[in-house]
Amino acid sequence: MLSRKILITFEFDGTDYAGWQLQPAQRTVQGVLEEALREVLQDPDLRVTGSGRTDAGVHALGMCATFTTPLPIPLEGLVRGVNNKLPDDLQILQAREVPSAFCARRWSKGKLYRYRIWNHLRPSALERDRAWHIFDPLDVGQMREGAKHLLGRHDFSAFRASGCSSTHPIRELYDIRIFREGSMVTIEVSGSAFLRHMVRNLVGVLVPVGKGLRPPEWVREVLQSGHRGKGGLTAPPQGLYLVEVYYNFAPTEQYPTSL
Amino acid sequence: MLSRKILITFEFDGTDYAGWQLQPAQRTVQGVLEEALREVLQDPDLRVTGSGRTDAGVHALGMCATFTTPLPIPLEGLVRGVNNKLPDDLQILQAREVPSAFCARRWSKGKLYRYRIWNHLRPSALERDRAWHIFDPLDVGQMREGAKHLLGRHDFSAFRASGCSSTHPIRELYDIRIFREGSMVTIEVSGSAFLRHMVRNLVGVLVPVGKGLRPPEWVREVLQSGHRGKGGLTAPPQGLYLVEVYYNFAPTEQYPTSL
Repeated sequence: MLSRKILITFEFDGTDYAGWQLQPAQRTVQGVLEEALREVLQDPDLRVTGSGRTDAGVHALGMCATFTTPLPIPLEGLVRGVNNKLPDDLQILQAREVPSAFCARRWSKGKLYRYRIWNHLRPSALERDRAWHIFDPLDVGQMREGAKHLLGRHDFSAFRASGCSSTHPIRELYDIRIFREGSMVTIEVSGSAFLRHMVRNLVGVLVPVGKGLRPPEWVREVLQSGHRGKGGLTAPPQGLYLVEVYYNFAPTEQYPTSL
Repeated sequence: MLSRKILITFEFDGTDYAGWQLQPAQRTVQGVLEEALREVLQDPDLRVTGSGRTDAGVHALGMCATFTTPLPIPLEGLVRGVNNKLPDDLQILQAREVPSAFCARRWSKGKLYRYRIWNHLRPSALERDRAWHIFDPLDVGQMREGAKHLLGRHDFSAFRASGCSSTHPIRELYDIRIFREGSMVTIEVSGSAFLRHMVRNLVGVLVPVGKGLRPPEWVREVLQSGHRGKGGLTAPPQGLYLVEVYYNFAPTEQYPTSL
């Protein structure tokens, strides 16, 4: 029987997950997803391959993963059936049929992340698991100046967490947008690919610039040092959202046609 | 010793609360608040009086309540101390000293509520406890037309839940704003005061108008009928936010000075 490879896009609230990757006795996104897919597709050996990993507490608005199935199930039925089995904090947004050679990680042309900072004197009850609370006022203009030094192709060793499994530290950042809406400061970062904790470490360096503790040029110094120890904090996970994984291919079939 | 009356403004995520009012063996906002205040103010008999009630699952960005204390504790110390004792999903935003005759409920000049609808083909994992998911596309223009019939002073019996303890059903709505940002439709309602479930019942009548199942004039028919049975659904609690309680007085002292 001919197997089809399916690419799914999904959203999750990372609060109650120990991150993406399967771990024994932990509730992980991969584990919960595989359990629901195995039940609907009646395949106890089904495995999913993610577009990357996420840490515990990190959210996703559009993470991707693939799996293969010999069942000729229509994509609409697949999405609805699996969503019925999935908990409310993890839902599939779209399914696309992809070539058998497709790899969710290697075929990615880039990713878009969002980081939200609740910048107010007091913490917010409603944003407590959705944003990083920073007490001191942030100067978004200074943060933008600092962020400019990160654009383009660089050795991002200074923003790489220990334990990162990437073969090399060269990455390209396409764009960094920083804006304020009321008390919420949002940082959007798009790039070719990301090292472990890279976005959270970038945010950890932009924040002291926003507080006025460091000049914008310090961001370049940190980058050029190549040493993680030179940088700032690692921003906490609850402010981070994987928004989109970019691919460039024509799916044979998709449901729904738009997100 | 002279007692001071303090008015506090607080935010809470209503997801894990059985509403405002104290109930045995339930986690309620009033119960959690009183416990923290009793500890900080060393007064085991302290009681708080709310600006009104909220149902289980309803959120607040600025609900109010009063209590009295003979302790001359500075308001800044009070806010910080009590917030340290409170859980992350309930936080005091402001404390103001008010006249001893002040009543959080009777002195209110009005309230502002917000109702959020996630209007998308699929539910949202991140908004599941923060908005009502409606599958069918809503026509915001039609909803605005319908809402016009509700403005002003009316007998709102048709939007009043059974068990409502108000002495009469006459209320005045000041303004209803309805707007869409992407997939999120927001309804903001301000008025003199509200009957039990009144905002959720208003939303339950505006939604069939937005879906095109009823004409905007149907809202007037429901209002004029005076019968709850004539209306639509009661919108679920997780989309509702008490945003602000309006008062008109000059506090003797306040912390912080702005919200």
